[in-house]
Amino acid sequence: MVMGASTSMSMIGLPIPMRIVGTGEYLPSRGVESVELDRRWSKPEGWTFQQTGVARRRFAASHETSSFMGARAARDALEVAGIRFEEVDCLISACSVMEQPIPCLGALLQREMGYGNSGIPAFDINATCLSFLVALDMASLAIATHRYRRILIVSVEVPSCGLNWDDVLTAPLFGDGAVAVLVESDTEQTGSALLTARLEAYGDGADFCRVRAGGTRLRVKDDVRTFIDGAHFEMDGKMVYKQAASQLPGFLRRLFAGAEMEIGDMDWLIPHQASGKALAHLRKASILPEERVVHILEDHGNQLSASIPAGLHRVIADGRLQRGQTVALLGSGAGLSLGGSILKY
Amino acid sequence: MVMGASTSMSMIGLPIPMRIVGTGEYLPSRGVESVELDRRWSKPEGWTFQQTGVARRRFAASHETSSFMGARAARDALEVAGIRFEEVDCLISACSVMEQPIPCLGALLQREMGYGNSGIPAFDINATCLSFLVALDMASLAIATHRYRRILIVSVEVPSCGLNWDDVLTAPLFGDGAVAVLVESDTEQTGSALLTARLEAYGDGADFCRVRAGGTRLRVKDDVRTFIDGAHFEMDGKMVYKQAASQLPGFLRRLFAGAEMEIGDMDWLIPHQASGKALAHLRKASILPEERVVHILEDHGNQLSASIPAGLHRVIADGRLQRGQTVALLGSGAGLSLGGSILKY
Repeated sequence: MVMGASTSMSMIGLPIPMRIVGTGEYLPSRGVESVELDRRWSKPEGWTFQQTGVARRRFAASHETSSFMGARAARDALEVAGIRFEEVDCLISACSVMEQPIPCLGALLQREMGYGNSGIPAFDINATCLSFLVALDMASLAIATHRYRRILIVSVEVPSCGLNWDDVLTAPLFGDGAVAVLVESDTEQTGSALLTARLEAYGDGADFCRVRAGGTRLRVKDDVRTFIDGAHFEMDGKMVYKQAASQLPGFLRRLFAGAEMEIGDMDWLIPHQASGKALAHLRKASILPEERVVHILEDHGNQLSASIPAGLHRVIADGRLQRGQTVALLGSGAGLSLGGSILKY
Repeated sequence: MVMGASTSMSMIGLPIPMRIVGTGEYLPSRGVESVELDRRWSKPEGWTFQQTGVARRRFAASHETSSFMGARAARDALEVAGIRFEEVDCLISACSVMEQPIPCLGALLQREMGYGNSGIPAFDINATCLSFLVALDMASLAIATHRYRRILIVSVEVPSCGLNWDDVLTAPLFGDGAVAVLVESDTEQTGSALLTARLEAYGDGADFCRVRAGGTRLRVKDDVRTFIDGAHFEMDGKMVYKQAASQLPGFLRRLFAGAEMEIGDMDWLIPHQASGKALAHLRKASILPEERVVHILEDHGNQLSASIPAGLHRVIADGRLQRGQTVALLGSGAGLSLGGSILKY
């Protein structure tokens, strides 16, 4: 049967019944305290924390690759859900920077989990810090259309490999880690759903937040020095903040209008953990009391794509997020992009 | 309204009404003939072509970056469709290796097209050589659920930047280029549809086809020599061929069963242009006459993710693919993965 668009129009759309059934996190073993960085930079104790909002972060050891960490987070998410990997219909890697250019991280994760001969579909989605939100959106569409019934999303980042330690305002912001989230169709009709999702990209801001070397444009053989410089994460924090802040009010209006809700209706706001300043700005822009805004920056740092699912994992794991509550996942990222998803958990 | 899964089950699913309304291609200006390579390697004239099935390919100049080429292909696709970019709901970059690690190529493409302040969503999907198929699949799901009405998919690759010219069997296989495909909901109910789609990943084959350096694992500062070695494309052609050939029959059965069709029902088969040998194998495995199997390897080379949409563009641009005909897009890629989409054009 080929459905006409006018027929399907009335039948399909938001909200999409879907349910988060398990989350897992892997944090690398090596912790770095901001007070160590204060000493390194001959700053007064507390300076780095004051500048960034990050008190400590984890950095991956060489064996803690993206696939290593992601697979361990994924196993935990599956264990919480009581699901075996062979019952998963699709694996989506949702990260900024992958482990290696070819093949995609999804394939490496599948192999690391011991299912390299399973045939389970695996691919990557990249919207930098908003990768998890886009993957969740696509996963929900796949569930709504019965393309896939159960999808494992893995966000894992190793920003420590590209930090410029001469940049004392940017380098201490970031932390490594992995988070996995298992979503499936809401077959029990519990009411769990993706209420709406929105992504807006403003490529004019592409140079404010970038890693230039590692793709097809800069080539290590052409000039090693230029390549090494380009392999560092570069951020014009002021410009990112300015562009994000100017777009945020309109974005929030459009996002919440999609669910016919207001930000004040949210039980939880889980923002991208961009920086202390960005979190403060967002908390102020929202009218939610501070205890409803999830804040893990202090002990995680900014984990790029893993930050939003790490916040989600935190409130699920400690029991604060209750079934039936509404939650807004929200962030801005390199691109510059703004993204949000509103869920009934 | 929150729909129960049991209600929506009967309403949503394949086939998904959607229509390809425009395609465009950009080929870099510099052509390289295989006879030049024969001379370089002191081989008899015709040797390189015989080994690979590639007679000539294009290589990008330094100004022909992924975003540069992709934006030009995208403009052509929009022009063919008579659509302005501001009428597009979403831009998906569907490539193996991006221009730079951060931000995603989607954002760079949006900026290059002159719409960097538009807010039009942009993100990347990566399933190596099958990236276009996964993007087409996700785009169709977005259309089915009314998440997006019109989506521009851009596949662009610059394999020339990572070839190892000491590997005389692998290096001559590849060519650079960009292809864009504009898809939208079939509001006129013409019958154009995605009939089925399938992706299978076998991560056990991840080492058979890889580029190791450029992500978070190998770091240029740790060891420049190791990094330079790892930045080359490495392929164990025999193992790729063996694994793909062993999985292909089962994959084809499962793919065509999804549309309740057989490969012989296809008007057109558009395979990934992996190599002359892979194409010969696939033609033999299918029962389609040779003239129904699209072959652009000879003058394009293997363009990774851009190969399948380039084949699609070829038969649309020259008028061979007619509305109402069925077409199978099919390929294997690094991962190792197999993927296919069956469309009514």
